[in-house]
Amino acid sequence: MRIVVVGGVAAGMSAASRAKRQNPAAEVVVFERGEHVSYGACGLPYVIGGQAGQDTDDFGALVARTPAQLRAQGLSVRLAHEVTGVDAAARTVMVRSVGSGRTTREPYDELLLATGVTPIRPDWENIGAEGVHVLREIPDGQAIEASLRAGAKRAVVIGGGYIGLELAESLVSRGLKVVLLEAAPQVAGRPLDPEYRTLVGAELERAGVDMRTGVKVQGLHARAGRVTGVQTDAGAVQADLVIVAVGVRPRTELAREAGVRLGRTGAVAVNDRQQTGVPGIWAAGDNAESLHRVTRRKVHVPLGLGANRMGRVAGVNMAGGEARFPGVVGSAVFKVFDLAVARTGLTHEEATALGLDAVSADISSTDHARYYQDARPLQVRLTAERGTGRLLGAQLLGHGDAVLRVDVIAALLHGRGRVQALAEMDFAYAPPFSGVWDVLLIAAGKVRGLL
Amino acid sequence: MRIVVVGGVAAGMSAASRAKRQNPAAEVVVFERGEHVSYGACGLPYVIGGQAGQDTDDFGALVARTPAQLRAQGLSVRLAHEVTGVDAAARTVMVRSVGSGRTTREPYDELLLATGVTPIRPDWENIGAEGVHVLREIPDGQAIEASLRAGAKRAVVIGGGYIGLELAESLVSRGLKVVLLEAAPQVAGRPLDPEYRTLVGAELERAGVDMRTGVKVQGLHARAGRVTGVQTDAGAVQADLVIVAVGVRPRTELAREAGVRLGRTGAVAVNDRQQTGVPGIWAAGDNAESLHRVTRRKVHVPLGLGANRMGRVAGVNMAGGEARFPGVVGSAVFKVFDLAVARTGLTHEEATALGLDAVSADISSTDHARYYQDARPLQVRLTAERGTGRLLGAQLLGHGDAVLRVDVIAALLHGRGRVQALAEMDFAYAPPFSGVWDVLLIAAGKVRGLL
Repeated sequence: MRIVVVGGVAAGMSAASRAKRQNPAAEVVVFERGEHVSYGACGLPYVIGGQAGQDTDDFGALVARTPAQLRAQGLSVRLAHEVTGVDAAARTVMVRSVGSGRTTREPYDELLLATGVTPIRPDWENIGAEGVHVLREIPDGQAIEASLRAGAKRAVVIGGGYIGLELAESLVSRGLKVVLLEAAPQVAGRPLDPEYRTLVGAELERAGVDMRTGVKVQGLHARAGRVTGVQTDAGAVQADLVIVAVGVRPRTELAREAGVRLGRTGAVAVNDRQQTGVPGIWAAGDNAESLHRVTRRKVHVPLGLGANRMGRVAGVNMAGGEARFPGVVGSAVFKVFDLAVARTGLTHEEATALGLDAVSADISSTDHARYYQDARPLQVRLTAERGTGRLLGAQLLGHGDAVLRVDVIAALLHGRGRVQALAEMDFAYAPPFSGVWDVLLIAAGKVRGLL
Repeated sequence: MRIVVVGGVAAGMSAASRAKRQNPAAEVVVFERGEHVSYGACGLPYVIGGQAGQDTDDFGALVARTPAQLRAQGLSVRLAHEVTGVDAAARTVMVRSVGSGRTTREPYDELLLATGVTPIRPDWENIGAEGVHVLREIPDGQAIEASLRAGAKRAVVIGGGYIGLELAESLVSRGLKVVLLEAAPQVAGRPLDPEYRTLVGAELERAGVDMRTGVKVQGLHARAGRVTGVQTDAGAVQADLVIVAVGVRPRTELAREAGVRLGRTGAVAVNDRQQTGVPGIWAAGDNAESLHRVTRRKVHVPLGLGANRMGRVAGVNMAGGEARFPGVVGSAVFKVFDLAVARTGLTHEEATALGLDAVSADISSTDHARYYQDARPLQVRLTAERGTGRLLGAQLLGHGDAVLRVDVIAALLHGRGRVQALAEMDFAYAPPFSGVWDVLLIAAGKVRGLL
């Protein structure tokens, strides 16, 4: 049995490892078009910022297992090999060696598409100039680092999503003057309700980022092939480093060529075993849809845990086992300067847009007993369905691990828990860790009173 | 309607406030034998240690609401008034004014016993000597502070439970040489499994505490009425300050006098509305039993959140409303020097002792991505029932808020959740907060594999 995996980062490598473990007799081949496999892409902003690795170019720190270790597990890992075509009927893929340029045809019994996402690069003038970067893979990080070492001083980050926010922090910590441009009226758009986006924006400004929202980029300026600025509908902004972080789209070219159906989200449609509709072809990771357990709708949530998990499920199933991916509940957390932000489920805005009768309560409290040293602000919005009290989501803003309380709500969302039950829970209390009534309990009590 | 509350700290004051809110026409009278009401007793070690309040005698920092504020809510708060007797048939209590020594008879329609616990003081020789303290109420803290200001240099803490451990830390932070004596083979006995007790003990020793376990105290030494040391079965230990922290017992004298039944735990037996078997008499807080939702047995867990919650339930019900206390799941957290320790549900040892077929997995990992700065060790033991996979409990050792992941397990215990479901949960991930696979997910996966 020959299992072929396209893409060797989160989902692809998880799948390959699980498939080999499930069926040690199977030949498992991973084709990765890049030079790196099995790394934590979520850590890229932190290497650049100096919070990860030995130095700001130590992207190797993100590698979980080296190609040699993977080969020792019995996996065949082919770096710099790009899969360029699929023949689903013949069960073959076309593979081009980046080094030699030669293309060969490779057979498979089961094929996993773990091609991930590609950062959106709008067709702005000079988008290809030196000093203009996206951040998705290790070479992107290396290119940003090269621009920094070449003396970049003024950065413009275009886009106020997770990547843009994290990179803004990294670049400030490297001493750059940073302008953040966001087309929407606020940063941190979809993941948070407007009131919470405001607090994220305030933290950016506190940290010295020149945040400009409601500003549309019209093009980039360059001189002698090097970027010199960003043209917006509110004037030009000087820059010698530009980060384009305006979103990602799933890489679905191979899937479409193979006749695999895409979902409404634009990502590959799969069942809960990660099967596409085409026999022998599977998809997992950021290129695939998943089930949102709160809304029961298909969503495209390109985040690390889901990708790893879908990969494991696909790997088990491709090798003859039985596993199912139960879906996501929309959990995410990010740090921006001193602020920690977490969310799960639906925002009030999302819930309302879906036609749910949502009720939310906001609690501003502290992460632990007010009288105990270093108590820091912790703000929670808890959202539930009016009448039933079914929990719909939570947003937390605070500092450090205090916002990981979000996982309590995530756990309850998995079981379609109710706010009435949350309000009565026996949480751990001691003054250095929480108030007697933890913020989640206070929030639950308040929501319960509003149902 | 006249509601009388005996005891004005956590349960008593919660009950009084709720009762007044439920029925503003009711007369609500709180008799407190001490001089302080409505304070967070859990913070006492931290005032002494200098982590709470403006100074090490600022016990006022722990007060949530002052008597004046409580009176403004319409509550009648009588400090220094001790209830010395109950006549359940006549619905009266005898109340002695500590100041005047005069006793009066007070009528009630509904009576709440929120008398809490009393620290155990073994009948050791010289137990009453100056410099020998327990820590339960504000005057206890003031007495310890007075001993410290009088120049105490060598402390012996007798007992390695929560209070003993927290006070050992406080006294070290005040510069004292601290010996901790524990009769059992290890500190932090019941709340943790033996392996985890060992780690707590190691932290004490790392922090410079002279920990002596398996040592029985035989008596205290004193000279001119002042303590000078502790006599043990392993020799004498010099001391000018001795903390006796060997446990608490529920204060049930009034309940017994009133004909109220005690449970097997020795605490007052109540139903889930906090009613005793005697008409018109209720009990709430540390003197009352509660239902353990994992074992469905009655337990005596004298901790702050449960006390507050029982008080609220009693207050609502006494004033004619309807509320029920759903019980506890055994959640607790404590800090000892740099170590944070949390637990919920049952330990493996407790589960086995109850005849459950328990399976546990231990994970040693880090609180966030290993490559992200300041990753610190985080250790988890997760326990479930073999076969069914029903979650039974968790123990976490780590640093700071990372151990609050315990509340995820607590939430699942409330709903009788299974480890199979936990293993599939969508938790929030970013490198500064967790690994892609959070320790709880890794632990759940490991337990699932052992079922």
